[in-house]
Amino acid sequence: MINAMRATLLNCTLRRSPAPSNTELLLSVVRAELERGGVETVSFRVVDEQVLEGVASESQGEGDGWPAIHDAIVAAEILVLATPTWVGQPSSVAKRVLERMDGMISETREDGLPIATGKVAGFVVTGNEDGAHHVIAELAQGVIDIGFTVPGQAWTYWNKGPGPGPSYSETDEGHEWSRRTGETAARNLLRTARALQPR
Amino acid sequence: MINAMRATLLNCTLRRSPAPSNTELLLSVVRAELERGGVETVSFRVVDEQVLEGVASESQGEGDGWPAIHDAIVAAEILVLATPTWVGQPSSVAKRVLERMDGMISETREDGLPIATGKVAGFVVTGNEDGAHHVIAELAQGVIDIGFTVPGQAWTYWNKGPGPGPSYSETDEGHEWSRRTGETAARNLLRTARALQPR
Amino acid sequence: MINAMRATLLNCTLRRSPAPSNTELLLSVVRAELERGGVETVSFRVVDEQVLEGVASESQGEGDGWPAIHDAIVAAEILVLATPTWVGQPSSVAKRVLERMDGMISETREDGLPIATGKVAGFVVTGNEDGAHHVIAELAQGVIDIGFTVPGQAWTYWNKGPGPGPSYSETDEGHEWSRRTGETAARNLLRTARALQPR
Amino acid sequence: MINAMRATLLNCTLRRSPAPSNTELLLSVVRAELERGGVETVSFRVVDEQVLEGVASESQGEGDGWPAIHDAIVAAEILVLATPTWVGQPSSVAKRVLERMDGMISETREDGLPIATGKVAGFVVTGNEDGAHHVIAELAQGVIDIGFTVPGQAWTYWNKGPGPGPSYSETDEGHEWSRRTGETAARNLLRTARALQPR
Repeated sequence: MINAMRATLLNCTLRRSPAPSNTELLLSVVRAELERGGVETVSFRVVDEQVLEGVASESQGEGDGWPAIHDAIVAAEILVLATPTWVGQPSSVAKRVLERMDGMISETREDGLPIATGKVAGFVVTGNEDGAHHVIAELAQGVIDIGFTVPGQAWTYWNKGPGPGPSYSETDEGHEWSRRTGETAARNLLRTARALQPR
Repeated sequence: MINAMRATLLNCTLRRSPAPSNTELLLSVVRAELERGGVETVSFRVVDEQVLEGVASESQGEGDGWPAIHDAIVAAEILVLATPTWVGQPSSVAKRVLERMDGMISETREDGLPIATGKVAGFVVTGNEDGAHHVIAELAQGVIDIGFTVPGQAWTYWNKGPGPGPSYSETDEGHEWSRRTGETAARNLLRTARALQPR
Repeated sequence: MINAMRATLLNCTLRRSPAPSNTELLLSVVRAELERGGVETVSFRVVDEQVLEGVASESQGEGDGWPAIHDAIVAAEILVLATPTWVGQPSSVAKRVLERMDGMISETREDGLPIATGKVAGFVVTGNEDGAHHVIAELAQGVIDIGFTVPGQAWTYWNKGPGPGPSYSETDEGHEWSRRTGETAARNLLRTARALQPR
Repeated sequence: MINAMRATLLNCTLRRSPAPSNTELLLSVVRAELERGGVETVSFRVVDEQVLEGVASESQGEGDGWPAIHDAIVAAEILVLATPTWVGQPSSVAKRVLERMDGMISETREDGLPIATGKVAGFVVTGNEDGAHHVIAELAQGVIDIGFTVPGQAWTYWNKGPGPGPSYSETDEGHEWSRRTGETAARNLLRTARALQPR
C-alpha cells in the first residue's frame, strides 16, 4: 500500500496576516483538489514566518523561520509555490524561498541521490497584470536546478491584461479557467508524485 | 537644425503577407505617433524578407534579406521591434533579428563608439495570452547588449488573461489602454532619441 | 516487460551541415549515456530540415520538415532539446521548435490526456558566454506548458565567463563538469521516463 | 553650467555587514569611474537597511529603511543596481528593491512626467555561476517599466562557468574584462544622463 501523499504549500504573498491574500484564494483551489485526492497538506504564509536571508537550510539567526519550512518540504512528496506577480516577476518572498532551497542541493537521501529526487513541484500565480508565464519559468528553473521534477501543466494562474487591472478577489472574470486549470494541475502533480515513488 | 529623425520598424509576426497581422495593427499606433512627431519611418515584415540564420551583418547566402534591414537600422535613430507572443516568449522571427543584430556589436561609428550608440529602441507586443512583460525583457536585454538605449516606458502591449483568448483584431477590449500606452512610448522614444543626438 | 525507451534529440544550432556544431559535441555525451541505458535515439539537426514558421503540427507548406520531427517526438518517451546561446537566449531555431510544438497542446492520447503526458524533456546548452540557466528556463517553461514533465537536474551546459570567450570545441576547460552533469541528466531522464510509463 | 551629477548605488547582496561582499568589489569599479567623471555617489547596502515588504514608496512600518533609499534615488540622475546571482536570478534583496520602486510609477515631476523620466540605470552582477545576462534582463525590464532609461552597454558582470566555481574575490581570472566593461558602463551611464538633462 502506498502511504498518503503529503504536499507542502507556500504562499509567497508580500502581505502579512491578517491582510487578505489573492494568491491564497487561488492556491486554495489547488489545495482542495489535492485533498480530494487524499493528499495531506501543510501550508505556510512565508512572509509571516520571518525567513532570514541566506542560501543554506540551517538557521541563519535567532527566530529564523526557514528550518521549519525546510523540514516540511523534505517531509512531503509535493511542493506548491504560490506567488503574486510584481513588476512581471515572482515576489521577493518567492525568490527568498528559492535562495533558501538552494541549500538542499547538497543534501542527499539514504541512496545518495539529491534530497529532492522523486519530489514534484507545481505553481500558482496571481497578479493584477501580465507576467504569469515568466513567473512560472523562474520558479520552474529554480526547483529543477535543486532536483524537483516539474510535471507537465502543473500550474495555474490568474491575471487580466492589458495593463494594470483588478485583483483576483475584485472580479469573477476568468476565475473559471483558473480554477479548472488549477484542478488539472493538482491531479497532474499527484499522478506524477505517485509514479515517482519507489515500488 | 536637427535633421528629421528616422525610425525603422520591424514586425516579427510568424505570418507571411498577405495574411493579416495583429502585431501590425498595434505597431501602426506607434508608427502613426512617431510620424505625427515628424519622424520618417521605414517598415519591414521580417518573415517576408527571407532572413537567413546567423550572427553576422553580412549576407549569409543567396537572397539573404538581412543586409537591407541592417542598413535601415543603421540609418535610423529609432528602432521598434514588434512581436507576437508564442509560448510566453518572443517569436522565433524576433529572436532571429536579435541574432543578426549581434553582428552590430563589432561595428563602430567614426568616433570609435559602437554603431548603436545614440540609437534608441522600443517594443510592441501582442498575444492571445499572458507574456508581454517577459517578451519586453528579452528584447530589451538583447538590444542593450548590442548598444541601443532603451528609454523608460518605451513599449506597449496587448493581451488578455487568464488563459488563451481572442487575438487583438477579434475584440476591442483593452485597445484604448494599449493605444494610449503606445502613443506615450512613441513620444518617449522620440524625446530620448533627440536628447541623444550630438549638439 | 517494458519496451525499449526511445529518445528524440533536436540539435538547434544555427549552423547547417556540414559545418561543425559545438552543441552537437555536448549533446553526444547525453546521447551516449542514454544509449548506454538501452534507449533508442533519433537525432535531427533542425536547421537542416527546413522547418517553416507556424504554431501547428501539420505541414505549413511544401517541403516543411516539421511533420517528420513531430512524429519522432510523439513516438519517443524522451525529448532532448540542445541549443547554443545567442544574446543570452535560446537560438531562433530552438524557439521555432517550441512554436511548432505548441500545436501538440490540442493533440490527445487515447485516454484523452494531452499527447505529451508521460513524456520527459531535458536540455543541453552551449555558448561562448553566460546564459545557460536562462536558456534552460525558457525551454523548460515551454515544454511544461505543452505537457512534458521535466525531471530534476535533467540538463547540462557549457560556457565560460565573464565576457565572450572560446567555444566548446576550442578548449578542454570545464568539459569534465559538463560531461558528468550531462551523464547524470541522461540517467535522470531515463529513470523518470520509466517511472511515468503505465504499469 | 551643468550641476554635478549624482548617482545612487544599491548593493543587493544577501550578506549583512560586516561580512565581505563580492558584489561590493565589482560595484566599486563602477563607483570609482563615476567619481572620476565628477559624479557624487551615495551607496546603500540594502540588506543592512531593514527594507520592509511592499510596493509603495511610503514607510510600511516602524524602522522601514526604504523611504531614505527612495529619496536618494529621486535625488540622483543615475541609479546603479548591483546584485549577486542566486539560482541564476537576481537576489531577493534586488527583487524587493524593484517592488518598492514600483511605487514610483505613480509619482510625477513638476512637468507631470513620471518621476524617473530623465534618470538612467545600470547594473553590476556577480556570481559563482552562470546567470548574469538574465539578471540584467530582469533588472532592466523592471526599471524601464518604472520609467528609467537604460543606456546601451550600461552593465558589467563577473562569473565563471560551467558549473559552480569560485567567487569574485577568490580568483583574479576575468577581473580585467569585468573591470574594463564596468568602466565603460560608468561612462555610458554618465554620457546618457548628461544628454537627458533639460537644456
